[in-house]
Amino acid sequence: MNTTQAPQDAAQQKLEELRRSIDNIDAALIYMLAERFRHTQAVGKLKAANNMPPADPAREARQVTRLRELACTAQLDPDFAEKFLAFIIREVIRHHEAFAREGR
Amino acid sequence: MNTTQAPQDAAQQKLEELRRSIDNIDAALIYMLAERFRHTQAVGKLKAANNMPPADPAREARQVTRLRELACTAQLDPDFAEKFLAFIIREVIRHHEAFAREGR
Repeated sequence: MNTTQAPQDAAQQKLEELRRSIDNIDAALIYMLAERFRHTQAVGKLKAANNMPPADPAREARQVTRLRELACTAQLDPDFAEKFLAFIIREVIRHHEAFAREGR
Repeated sequence: MNTTQAPQDAAQQKLEELRRSIDNIDAALIYMLAERFRHTQAVGKLKAANNMPPADPAREARQVTRLRELACTAQLDPDFAEKFLAFIIREVIRHHEAFAREGR
């Protein structure tokens, strides 16, 4: 091993450690997202069975405010948190539309 | 209370219960995302300090494969899991670009 190799090896090792943590966090995110969609699908079925309106703009506005506040506490960019919620809600709407097309 | 009101009240109560779980899951997601970005920011700094290439297409390909497999296990749409990873990576790149603009 030459003298320039050692710091590069140390950096590579540190990189792999960080990536292992990122991989664990990603697994947690995937499982939490799966659980979230299980719940929103239950909401969709409940609303359809009880003739409740599919969209609820007041609920969405409260969610945005709350997630932005949580993001600030967690030192996450609140704009990103809002974009993330919009990304998730687009998928929920896609599920609900597919569910409606299948004749419920 | 009339006879049609009771089932609607029960449905509203069930909806509120589901929403409380969704709110808890969202808080967990926000905190996990904050932790993920703390780690990717550490990766960005490490790479910049050690002249390592910022992008790693082989790593990204492995992440896509792994997250799609995890999604199948969790009964989450694997296409959504892949879209989610792409969404997160776009934000990571945005952070790295901002970091580079600030002169590191």
